[in-house]
Amino acid sequence: MSARVAALEGVPYRLPLHGQLAWGKGSSLSVAEHVLVRVRLDDGTVGQAEAPPRPTIYGETTASVLGLLRLLEPQLVGLEITDTARLNAVRNSVVNNHTARGALDMALHDARAQAAGSTLFAELLGPQTRVRPSFILGIAPHAEMLAEARRVIGAGVRVLKVKVGRDHAHDLRLIAELRAEYGDEVMLYADSNETLTPELAPAALEAMRDAGLKYVEEPLPVRLLHERSALRARGILPVVGDDSCFTPADLERELTFGTIDILNIKTARNGFTDSLGMLGRARQAGLGVMIGSQASTGLGTLHAALMASQAGVTEPSELSFVLKVQDDLLTAPIGFEDGWLDVAALADLRLDESKLGRYRLD
Amino acid sequence: MSARVAALEGVPYRLPLHGQLAWGKGSSLSVAEHVLVRVRLDDGTVGQAEAPPRPTIYGETTASVLGLLRLLEPQLVGLEITDTARLNAVRNSVVNNHTARGALDMALHDARAQAAGSTLFAELLGPQTRVRPSFILGIAPHAEMLAEARRVIGAGVRVLKVKVGRDHAHDLRLIAELRAEYGDEVMLYADSNETLTPELAPAALEAMRDAGLKYVEEPLPVRLLHERSALRARGILPVVGDDSCFTPADLERELTFGTIDILNIKTARNGFTDSLGMLGRARQAGLGVMIGSQASTGLGTLHAALMASQAGVTEPSELSFVLKVQDDLLTAPIGFEDGWLDVAALADLRLDESKLGRYRLD
Repeated sequence: MSARVAALEGVPYRLPLHGQLAWGKGSSLSVAEHVLVRVRLDDGTVGQAEAPPRPTIYGETTASVLGLLRLLEPQLVGLEITDTARLNAVRNSVVNNHTARGALDMALHDARAQAAGSTLFAELLGPQTRVRPSFILGIAPHAEMLAEARRVIGAGVRVLKVKVGRDHAHDLRLIAELRAEYGDEVMLYADSNETLTPELAPAALEAMRDAGLKYVEEPLPVRLLHERSALRARGILPVVGDDSCFTPADLERELTFGTIDILNIKTARNGFTDSLGMLGRARQAGLGVMIGSQASTGLGTLHAALMASQAGVTEPSELSFVLKVQDDLLTAPIGFEDGWLDVAALADLRLDESKLGRYRLD
Repeated sequence: MSARVAALEGVPYRLPLHGQLAWGKGSSLSVAEHVLVRVRLDDGTVGQAEAPPRPTIYGETTASVLGLLRLLEPQLVGLEITDTARLNAVRNSVVNNHTARGALDMALHDARAQAAGSTLFAELLGPQTRVRPSFILGIAPHAEMLAEARRVIGAGVRVLKVKVGRDHAHDLRLIAELRAEYGDEVMLYADSNETLTPELAPAALEAMRDAGLKYVEEPLPVRLLHERSALRARGILPVVGDDSCFTPADLERELTFGTIDILNIKTARNGFTDSLGMLGRARQAGLGVMIGSQASTGLGTLHAALMASQAGVTEPSELSFVLKVQDDLLTAPIGFEDGWLDVAALADLRLDESKLGRYRLD
């Protein structure tokens, strides 16, 4: 008989950022206030993962994450950690709460691996043990965006996802300057966060393509299914699906309407179970795949990197948000070199309890 | 200068039910554990409304409702209660949290009316001062469903929305018995809660129509837009949209795809602002409209009844869940007579503080 779930625990913590991260028409973050989700088994094993509540994206708060753990705990306690069917049924008995449920799934995976005498890395590391990390360049005054780009390129990143959509002319000027400075050494793409309109999108995408961007994430409001399908069919620039693909059911809808070329899978909102399912489904449908970040700190980045190492992940993955965090909870920093992240080398990183003690909010 | 928002307050309370309410493939409720949302103005006015958290439908919990109020309070405090544009911008700065944001909107309306020396009823009561209430008959053993139907018909209700989808043959047998007992005196319709498949739906709807049901709510999984559009186009039975129409943006998508004939607007999840907007949009598009309940207790029922009294609400509205609650927070029970609810007569009902004291959980 395998170990059983004994308790769920949520530990809110707050890490300071270098500057803020702004996107879309008006959203921004200035601290990383996340929740460490812990699953304790009756053999003493503790699995853990990071839940980043995003009220403007998923409607979650620190309080909602803790509330969800309290709601599900009585149904999970006593279940065998190997009984994935029943564990998933409980986790999927509620809707939304994407990052709380995603973290719960990853913490369950972590606990399951340890309880079997293994490790999460031994169980999940895929064949791509080195992956290409991208950095999310938030919207800021021009000079700040350039300075941040230089800083992260100096730290070993070679792919920038540029948040655009508040000032199209400025977006193109910034991209031109980055292209002039780095040429093909640095790959650039845009995240529009649904800020374009069906009328303006074709010309905007042509301008992005001509400026040297490789693809564009969510150019149009996601509910405009016909318009998004038509835009993608024009083939101006590959379209990345993110806001439109929160869940496996969302992905099915997007495949039906043919709206995207590349799927952005976020472990932070899908956990490992659904991320692996969505990866398989996307590849079967001929989509490219990247692994995204929900502005994750170290622990969430470890987990996203494990997913990015899987066969079938074709694009650079958003694994460098740790460069935006002033300090972290891990025993050593996650580093990048010449455009690569060595995922296998992260296997020995652990949560530093003294750092958790310093940054926890409860 | 008008009064300003001074504080938000959330008071969780729990009311016992007569039996339980079950629907869909496996959801059920056995108590009403809701949150009283209060908006306090700097002139002493207190507006209030009921938020019913539904983890399986909207992902909300009591904790998430309280967390959302704490998140938004600093942005709302100091705003003039008449400044609806800024109040709505804050309320809409987060996603999901449907019942928390709906209740907040209704509490703001209540506070605004009182601060102007008026009442919510004086401001919002529409021309249909008497409306037809429907009762939601949850899934239960056959004899219990029949007994509950008799009880609520005895209490003055003449419209039953029958929850179906776990056992199609049983559903039809129950409906036949109700038809045999009450004939045309009682109007019946079905809520499938997305339990049919595109293959089975046409025959199932034909059987429902032949059994005398007036319409069917959400026969198919909502993400199957093309299939739902095709089913509605067959015209077998009018289709009511509920799960597919959580927000005004959802309604736009459904209108684009032509999936529904009647819109179920729920004040509990949309507040007054979005409910009024959706009512206007639905009527403009030629849809019928009913007002739905999220298993609301008295206060939520008052607010839903105000919406049901508006011009343009064409169908019976789900206003009798109070018959399922053993006790309530209002100063007098909401009653029904010969198929009607007299909305105007509810104007004098107030929240009974002693009852709130007895049932509050904090």
